[in-house]
Amino acid sequence: MSKVVLAYSGGLDTSYCIKHLTVDKGHEVHAVTVDTGGFSNDEIQQLENKALQLGASSFHCIDAVEAYYQKCIRFLLYGNVLRNNTYPLSVSAERMFQALEVAGYAKLIGADAIAHGSTGAGNDQVRFDLVFQTLGEGIQIITPIRDQQLSRQQEIDYLHQQGMDWSWEKAQYSINQGLWGTSVGGAETLTSHQPLPETAYPTPLQKQGSERIEIGFAEGQACSLNGQTLSPVALIRALHQLAQPYAIGRDIHVGDTIIGIKGRVGFEAAAPLILLKAHHLLEKHTLTKWQQYWKEQLGNWYGMLLHEGQFLDPVMRNIETFLEDTQDKVNGSVFVRLHPYRFELEGIQSPNDLMNNSFGQYGEMNKGWSGEDVKGFTKILGNQSKIFEMVNTTSA
Amino acid sequence: MSKVVLAYSGGLDTSYCIKHLTVDKGHEVHAVTVDTGGFSNDEIQQLENKALQLGASSFHCIDAVEAYYQKCIRFLLYGNVLRNNTYPLSVSAERMFQALEVAGYAKLIGADAIAHGSTGAGNDQVRFDLVFQTLGEGIQIITPIRDQQLSRQQEIDYLHQQGMDWSWEKAQYSINQGLWGTSVGGAETLTSHQPLPETAYPTPLQKQGSERIEIGFAEGQACSLNGQTLSPVALIRALHQLAQPYAIGRDIHVGDTIIGIKGRVGFEAAAPLILLKAHHLLEKHTLTKWQQYWKEQLGNWYGMLLHEGQFLDPVMRNIETFLEDTQDKVNGSVFVRLHPYRFELEGIQSPNDLMNNSFGQYGEMNKGWSGEDVKGFTKILGNQSKIFEMVNTTSA
Amino acid sequence: MSKVVLAYSGGLDTSYCIKHLTVDKGHEVHAVTVDTGGFSNDEIQQLENKALQLGASSFHCIDAVEAYYQKCIRFLLYGNVLRNNTYPLSVSAERMFQALEVAGYAKLIGADAIAHGSTGAGNDQVRFDLVFQTLGEGIQIITPIRDQQLSRQQEIDYLHQQGMDWSWEKAQYSINQGLWGTSVGGAETLTSHQPLPETAYPTPLQKQGSERIEIGFAEGQACSLNGQTLSPVALIRALHQLAQPYAIGRDIHVGDTIIGIKGRVGFEAAAPLILLKAHHLLEKHTLTKWQQYWKEQLGNWYGMLLHEGQFLDPVMRNIETFLEDTQDKVNGSVFVRLHPYRFELEGIQSPNDLMNNSFGQYGEMNKGWSGEDVKGFTKILGNQSKIFEMVNTTSA
Amino acid sequence: MSKVVLAYSGGLDTSYCIKHLTVDKGHEVHAVTVDTGGFSNDEIQQLENKALQLGASSFHCIDAVEAYYQKCIRFLLYGNVLRNNTYPLSVSAERMFQALEVAGYAKLIGADAIAHGSTGAGNDQVRFDLVFQTLGEGIQIITPIRDQQLSRQQEIDYLHQQGMDWSWEKAQYSINQGLWGTSVGGAETLTSHQPLPETAYPTPLQKQGSERIEIGFAEGQACSLNGQTLSPVALIRALHQLAQPYAIGRDIHVGDTIIGIKGRVGFEAAAPLILLKAHHLLEKHTLTKWQQYWKEQLGNWYGMLLHEGQFLDPVMRNIETFLEDTQDKVNGSVFVRLHPYRFELEGIQSPNDLMNNSFGQYGEMNKGWSGEDVKGFTKILGNQSKIFEMVNTTSA
Repeated sequence: MSKVVLAYSGGLDTSYCIKHLTVDKGHEVHAVTVDTGGFSNDEIQQLENKALQLGASSFHCIDAVEAYYQKCIRFLLYGNVLRNNTYPLSVSAERMFQALEVAGYAKLIGADAIAHGSTGAGNDQVRFDLVFQTLGEGIQIITPIRDQQLSRQQEIDYLHQQGMDWSWEKAQYSINQGLWGTSVGGAETLTSHQPLPETAYPTPLQKQGSERIEIGFAEGQACSLNGQTLSPVALIRALHQLAQPYAIGRDIHVGDTIIGIKGRVGFEAAAPLILLKAHHLLEKHTLTKWQQYWKEQLGNWYGMLLHEGQFLDPVMRNIETFLEDTQDKVNGSVFVRLHPYRFELEGIQSPNDLMNNSFGQYGEMNKGWSGEDVKGFTKILGNQSKIFEMVNTTSA
Repeated sequence: MSKVVLAYSGGLDTSYCIKHLTVDKGHEVHAVTVDTGGFSNDEIQQLENKALQLGASSFHCIDAVEAYYQKCIRFLLYGNVLRNNTYPLSVSAERMFQALEVAGYAKLIGADAIAHGSTGAGNDQVRFDLVFQTLGEGIQIITPIRDQQLSRQQEIDYLHQQGMDWSWEKAQYSINQGLWGTSVGGAETLTSHQPLPETAYPTPLQKQGSERIEIGFAEGQACSLNGQTLSPVALIRALHQLAQPYAIGRDIHVGDTIIGIKGRVGFEAAAPLILLKAHHLLEKHTLTKWQQYWKEQLGNWYGMLLHEGQFLDPVMRNIETFLEDTQDKVNGSVFVRLHPYRFELEGIQSPNDLMNNSFGQYGEMNKGWSGEDVKGFTKILGNQSKIFEMVNTTSA
Repeated sequence: MSKVVLAYSGGLDTSYCIKHLTVDKGHEVHAVTVDTGGFSNDEIQQLENKALQLGASSFHCIDAVEAYYQKCIRFLLYGNVLRNNTYPLSVSAERMFQALEVAGYAKLIGADAIAHGSTGAGNDQVRFDLVFQTLGEGIQIITPIRDQQLSRQQEIDYLHQQGMDWSWEKAQYSINQGLWGTSVGGAETLTSHQPLPETAYPTPLQKQGSERIEIGFAEGQACSLNGQTLSPVALIRALHQLAQPYAIGRDIHVGDTIIGIKGRVGFEAAAPLILLKAHHLLEKHTLTKWQQYWKEQLGNWYGMLLHEGQFLDPVMRNIETFLEDTQDKVNGSVFVRLHPYRFELEGIQSPNDLMNNSFGQYGEMNKGWSGEDVKGFTKILGNQSKIFEMVNTTSA
Repeated sequence: MSKVVLAYSGGLDTSYCIKHLTVDKGHEVHAVTVDTGGFSNDEIQQLENKALQLGASSFHCIDAVEAYYQKCIRFLLYGNVLRNNTYPLSVSAERMFQALEVAGYAKLIGADAIAHGSTGAGNDQVRFDLVFQTLGEGIQIITPIRDQQLSRQQEIDYLHQQGMDWSWEKAQYSINQGLWGTSVGGAETLTSHQPLPETAYPTPLQKQGSERIEIGFAEGQACSLNGQTLSPVALIRALHQLAQPYAIGRDIHVGDTIIGIKGRVGFEAAAPLILLKAHHLLEKHTLTKWQQYWKEQLGNWYGMLLHEGQFLDPVMRNIETFLEDTQDKVNGSVFVRLHPYRFELEGIQSPNDLMNNSFGQYGEMNKGWSGEDVKGFTKILGNQSKIFEMVNTTSA
């Protein structure tokens, strides 16, 4: 009899795992759910009830929201990270943090094994495996669903045989909700050509007209909403309440999965999208050209490795350090207008604004330099192309 | 008396230049206007009339639209180029081509000098100078406006003295229109915090509801609209007619000018935005991960150097070759829904789609590989992080 | 009974494979050896004799030297590719081409399966597998050595039992010789701290003093040696004859294997090192700064993916196209002085030299521009840092 | 009468400047020399004597060696920075620090202007100007040599007229010596094809045979030599004493100057080259693949901007932070063998070595994973290329 920590979500797969691991394998199963911003208290209570009924020796819910923000979302914001220029990595980031917390819990209680309920067909198995094998210090990894390749119906039948007479209706769309956005998969997303219907999105359009909001940033982090100081996590939640009813931040991401095939997934993520774009605009005013250039390079790479489960490569810590180091001048307010299905960035105000200052203004002459200076600038700037042209035209 | 080719736009600055160069300097001025998609026949006729009245020895309008598409826009599309993730480089690209055509014309007619009317305060002077000094083979560059630093009123007074009793009212916004979008500058764009008002945009919102369109691509170039085969230039124009009345593609670009200060400019560019995003989506389905990665690197760089007037650096030719080489599989249709102020990418259909094929589908098991394979994959993929963790935890 | 094509090297592992696949598995084995520049005619004859004695139904030696140069080495040269700034990828590149040729041969003769003798511990298995699974169109891959995990002694015993009374003494170092260099592994290279002894290198030092040679390049390819026009392959061989007796091009490469661990391998590669460095020097004179920058980016990436067996990713074709496009001005002669253990690049002569021309010379004033121009240049170039300093000092 | 700080080197140009600025312009000239490792106490005394004789109101020598190491060389080492893969940036880095120190001194003593003696033909003027205009807070920049375009002889004649009867023989080579290497320019370096003769290098070959040394690193910085703990600056100097007599680290750099032309300069830099290569080797053993990849990207960029005088762009601070963050595991010893004209890296020993550990060894099977795992790895790794091949072959 081994002590097994199971990453438990309450769905069919992980419910099957509890029963299977306790009854068939004789393990002592400790179900653990990691909250990255997607659960209400009621839902957590229900998770606990179900886990224990299924035979888990214990249930534990880890509140990882703050850690998730501090150790990951923060850097996604600094880096303006949108995978493939579209997707805020809602699920990828969250799954990584769930894996990290589960691994920590397993070590804490001295588990012999860690189990997860991922199938053999997606990204999540890779994320769980990578974290567990790196941090698990030799703890065994158990993956019943992947190993047994059971169909949904087989799992239901098994649970019924074991006396679990719950209904396991399959939702039309698979929804994954967390602090950094909600994904929506199924039906149309399995095709290349169909959009998701209005009804597929969890949050219906509920607001009309438009609304102007002000987001305050301090050293790259959002710190106030419409003048009210909030912690970053509270701000994300408040902005979600405000903006998601406009049905803002809906889109479909088409991307490369870790296992090499293409995947397509819908999402709604009003707060992440607004924050990312507002932050990016503030940076356009406060950072130099090359700061922006390298931030984009490293931010995109960070998003890619995070997406692919390689969060524990030490280069990720180095990139986080870089990104944080670029943020000390990213201060000020961003003005955003919310409309149904979209938002506009109206402008910014910042003590660190490199544009609107006494030094100079585009298109107007100023004390800083003269037309003669620009002539010289251009002459020297063009030297190499000019020489190239002369040498290679002459020599032809 | 020198033979001077003047890049003529019909505005106050270049009108002043004709008069000044002929009367004060005694030059023979040949006015040349380069059409990159922004002029009607009537407007060109008016330009000619004005130029000759002002004293130009000749007027010539060069139709550069097709060359502009073939030698530049095409690559912006291949590269999904949006400067700072926002701006299709409408003016930057166009100005570059106007300079190239003017330089060619000057050599053709054996001019002694080329004149342009740029002030000493913006990007355009750099673009003109760079091209003229590189391709001009020693032809002199004359820049009366930059050199004399005249105010608008001084220019008007001078023209009045010379008997040109035209009215030179300053428009509230400075508008620059071309095939790849229209820029809007002035008033609010000189601040950091104000959006442009609805009325600042040349094309008002005229359509309501929504409309689904289909854009066909062949080897990366748009070739059909709603089933009708069109040349690329005709397609961009047709799409503009269709989409601009939805007020799509409006935004404000904040960016680094060539001369090192920040600038802010509004634009409307429905056709460029729709084409760029549709093209990008098609690539997400048809290119490999690393193809997309390197296209993004090189496309962004191409946009940066183009913006900064360095179109003649030979690396630009190398990048164009690279971008074109990536496009042979970028074939198929993209479905787009137009709404007031926005558009949605609904999906794609492509014979080269790497996603929706018989080989495998995300989240569903298939013949291609097993969960065991992924276990092995993950184990090896995680080796380095695992070793790093072990070595450095042990050694601590 | 299946028709099996075996990638045959004549070593113990692949000899075991022939016997095992014919006797134990009853397959019809077609042994194929791919010559990438490392075999003499005598050696090929011996390979054939051995293969047939071991029971192969046929033996075929594919001369891939020219294809290897045209499809791979050429681009390594264009890209100045030295993995980790040290290693010309001698083995990585060669193994990839052997895999490609074997796959082609298997399809040609309608084989049911392809076998290779790689163990489960190195890079080669990945290279073979990747090519065979991509190009093999469903042909099975057989890997007896990896699957059975036999020790060297077990293989020898098996062959003795089968009547093959050959001696299989293990060489002290494992040597792999090909057109693009020779690798040397074993003993010291398994440690982190020991250098290879003089005797480990196949080619002893045989020349003293020094010798000046001239290498001619045309569009990036070496085309003449000391004034004699040679085909690229012939030139590499002639340069090897000339320079390897100086014991030039010896080093130890420490790198990341495909499977995530670190590896260390010695090599001698006089001709590749001299050609790469000579080519690079010629590019420093003939290409612009940004051409060199992007060539380095893409060249290094090309080397990485080649090393990791991902030669068939289509991005590799795009990179090849880019690299080739940069070479049209890389013409001229490079002067190199050979010494024992090292060489010096003395200089170049080129019709496309951007340095030594009538236009201007570093450190001497010239007609092209004035000190005033540079003043203007610097003023504008420094604008952003200056504004940044002013805004952020004032605001502090 | 203005208070002018002059960056004084003791050469003809800056000697002329003292006389000219005091006598012709009536300024109060404060000569300041910044020692970045190239001066002996005697030389500094002579500089002072000459400056005062020429009429300077004061002379001050700033010892910037430690600051130069801490604020710049350290990062060049972390980043393995060799410009164009060759040049340790000896002069570029040093000139930047001299400019920074001079600017600081000018502010300290409340100067009205800063003068430097650069001509209008090289990089140095740009470096001085950029720093002075950014940090000078409006202090005027005076550049007599650039402005007056005097010939060497004109300067000498002027000084003679002013009673300075010193001899100003021009050395055959222009030598610039500092902590991070010595540059050698003139004669042959003005051609593209000639190497520098043996006698051009300041340090002749004085040692024969070979010598093995051990360099200890702690968090990326060299901290001991042959077992003796030394401060970084002392270690560089000791290593110079040890290795330069072997004539190690000589080479010619061909590169793009800031003003767009190509330049060529010789150098000797035994200590920098040995340290850079030893450090790099240690990183190959202790960092992950992606850490090395991004270090190379950012390190090269850092070198480029430093070379081009853009040390004050804030992205440079961000890159320094990144580089430093990567160094905590770069610990251990590197064994180097010195020979005449060259050195060999023999190997390393490190508690953070990712290679030589109990976990696994290249080419040998181990407990960590099996051949089956690699099979799975390869299958998944090759998925995308395989799908690409299938889709695009089928569709053809």
